[in-house]
Amino acid sequence: MPAFAKRMSQVRRSFIREILKVTADPSIISFAGGLPKPDLFPIGPMADAAARVLAENGPAALQYSVTEGEPELREWIAARYKARKNMDIDPANILVTSGSQQSLDLIGKVFLDPGDLLAVELPGYIGAIQAFSLFEPEFAGVPLTPQGPDIDRLTELLLTRKAKMFYAVPNFQNPSGMTYSLAARRAVAETLRVSDTVFVEDDPYGELRFAGEPMPPVSSFLPGGDGFMLGTFSKIVAPGLRLGWVAATPEAMPKLVTAKQASDLHSSTFVQRVLVRYLIDNDLDAHIATIKSVYGAQRNLMLERIKAEFPEGVTCTEPEGGMFLWVTLPEGCSAFDLFDLCIKEKVAFVPGGPFFVDGGGARAMRLNFSNADPDRIVEGIARMGRGIKALLAKTSCAAVA
Amino acid sequence: MPAFAKRMSQVRRSFIREILKVTADPSIISFAGGLPKPDLFPIGPMADAAARVLAENGPAALQYSVTEGEPELREWIAARYKARKNMDIDPANILVTSGSQQSLDLIGKVFLDPGDLLAVELPGYIGAIQAFSLFEPEFAGVPLTPQGPDIDRLTELLLTRKAKMFYAVPNFQNPSGMTYSLAARRAVAETLRVSDTVFVEDDPYGELRFAGEPMPPVSSFLPGGDGFMLGTFSKIVAPGLRLGWVAATPEAMPKLVTAKQASDLHSSTFVQRVLVRYLIDNDLDAHIATIKSVYGAQRNLMLERIKAEFPEGVTCTEPEGGMFLWVTLPEGCSAFDLFDLCIKEKVAFVPGGPFFVDGGGARAMRLNFSNADPDRIVEGIARMGRGIKALLAKTSCAAVA
Repeated sequence: MPAFAKRMSQVRRSFIREILKVTADPSIISFAGGLPKPDLFPIGPMADAAARVLAENGPAALQYSVTEGEPELREWIAARYKARKNMDIDPANILVTSGSQQSLDLIGKVFLDPGDLLAVELPGYIGAIQAFSLFEPEFAGVPLTPQGPDIDRLTELLLTRKAKMFYAVPNFQNPSGMTYSLAARRAVAETLRVSDTVFVEDDPYGELRFAGEPMPPVSSFLPGGDGFMLGTFSKIVAPGLRLGWVAATPEAMPKLVTAKQASDLHSSTFVQRVLVRYLIDNDLDAHIATIKSVYGAQRNLMLERIKAEFPEGVTCTEPEGGMFLWVTLPEGCSAFDLFDLCIKEKVAFVPGGPFFVDGGGARAMRLNFSNADPDRIVEGIARMGRGIKALLAKTSCAAVA
Repeated sequence: MPAFAKRMSQVRRSFIREILKVTADPSIISFAGGLPKPDLFPIGPMADAAARVLAENGPAALQYSVTEGEPELREWIAARYKARKNMDIDPANILVTSGSQQSLDLIGKVFLDPGDLLAVELPGYIGAIQAFSLFEPEFAGVPLTPQGPDIDRLTELLLTRKAKMFYAVPNFQNPSGMTYSLAARRAVAETLRVSDTVFVEDDPYGELRFAGEPMPPVSSFLPGGDGFMLGTFSKIVAPGLRLGWVAATPEAMPKLVTAKQASDLHSSTFVQRVLVRYLIDNDLDAHIATIKSVYGAQRNLMLERIKAEFPEGVTCTEPEGGMFLWVTLPEGCSAFDLFDLCIKEKVAFVPGGPFFVDGGGARAMRLNFSNADPDRIVEGIARMGRGIKALLAKTSCAAVA
């Protein structure tokens, strides 16, 4: 058989998606996925939008279209940057993609040569690590503190080691739930301004803030459209549409369009038109308010049950939005060992290791609260508490705890 | 500004899509595109399918799904291989993609290292050349004869020069309209069997045969699932869905799934479910019969008008299906010069040059007949006839003609 390309040896199948196969067993309560709550999908309004699009403009909605994306949708995205963040983004620099995952693939194609230094957060978003892996960069980690990335380390990577790219998720990060402070955003932007580094700011969860004040994107502190801002409709409308976007620099936009054209010509005309019809005909902010109310309550319940059920020495982030909590076990404990114990208890999560490009994260784990009903949160956290106690009772970390 | 990746210097934006911008002027009759006829899209049935999917299974249709594609759709595709070609394809080896263009991108990702020798047809499909360009292969051309590829040249490339991949469109090829004879299919398969070359058999038009007998895929002559068979719903249902597939070798399937996951997680759940609902609830063969009847009539009319309007010495293929004719001007003429003259006459086509990886094709051109109404075919071919006569009157090729 012919050999596979060298780049394929760099990439693993997503560990999370492998876990999802284990958790297909309905008796397992899973906090492992990263799924939005399907009860909240706007099914009726989407059906209305689909019917209207086909009735009013069916042939065009089913025909080939432009690579950049449907003009109305690009204008809607630009208008939302203006309304929510007071940013002037030219729709001409917005590329509609088949979800943020494709934005990552296209940016990797356009910028990354093998061996380029790519700075990512520790822990970092696993889908981005996977997407970029195919372009064979050298990954380097920037530890996250509760305020944001370690600026000394970031400065070393961007200025001394001339990193080609820095990929960041400053709002309610996946997996940690952490959010960059305003001061951290300014400090990151300062470092970026004096570097020659491509900045990729991914923001899938920014609209899902339950508490605190919205903060401006790091890119808003960069001069004239520097930085790539990624967005998605997966968390505010529905992921099964597979639609997101890149707000790109004017210089890179033509290259991204070329890469998109080579990759899939354009995203589905039909889905783009149904989505923009839905966005225009409905009150998205009211819909997002419902999502936030439900996710916020689930977050609160999960945090409350963790405090009640998990032993002392186990810590947890308290994110102001998004979909994930980040739990850290006492020194010496292994989240992989805990995973095995928890599967016996019929509860699942994602161990932290796969999120660390430096091999760290052994005692951390990610818990999803967006796609779990309250009764399953109560029961699942109780099961995890039993699992953690069993772990502490049998391993060396017990002494430390 | 940071430098773009080296691979981006290899790829051009599609010349065809640039032409499409010129032909946005409605006074220009365009034979340049490759669009299916939108009047034939099944708009009502698609609306019924969308309504039914959302009413019966809305949350799942809008949620994340598996990378491989919706199981019902993969089973439908496998069943069609059985029914139409008597081939046993395991649905487990079918990957749903966001159109054939993405199939090409994924196969390139999985197999092509920079510098790998990639054999393509002369002329060849421009979208494939563009998709593969990003993986920096060395292209080598295999001339097409009216029966199929030049087997001596193919043998040289596959056996002597150990080409990594051979990409072919054996049915009603884009751009030439040519179809491999049965003997050519066997000969190509013989060469492939003794090579270590990845065979990519693209078949977007195979279902659109107006005349003659269907022929088995080249891959059907290869042992046990060797070869990658690409298909698409763009020409038999609607391109705006952006759905196609790869029937892969069992060895490569996991790598393709990994590449797909890294590229866009999965194709739209919603569109996949709407499509398979449409396929199950409707008579696709009756729909395809309608398409074939319309395209066949348009092909006949275009050929008839070409014979009436084009001067002696201009030749044209007579394809038994598909969407394209291939016209060749007399020796010494330039299709690019003709393009300029024809734009003045308000008619457009695609000059042949961009379809040739060896720099050939100067006097050839592609005409699309699927997306032109009869009156525009009559008028457009008359305009082209005037353009060709003007070309012959003013250039050196006149003497040869």
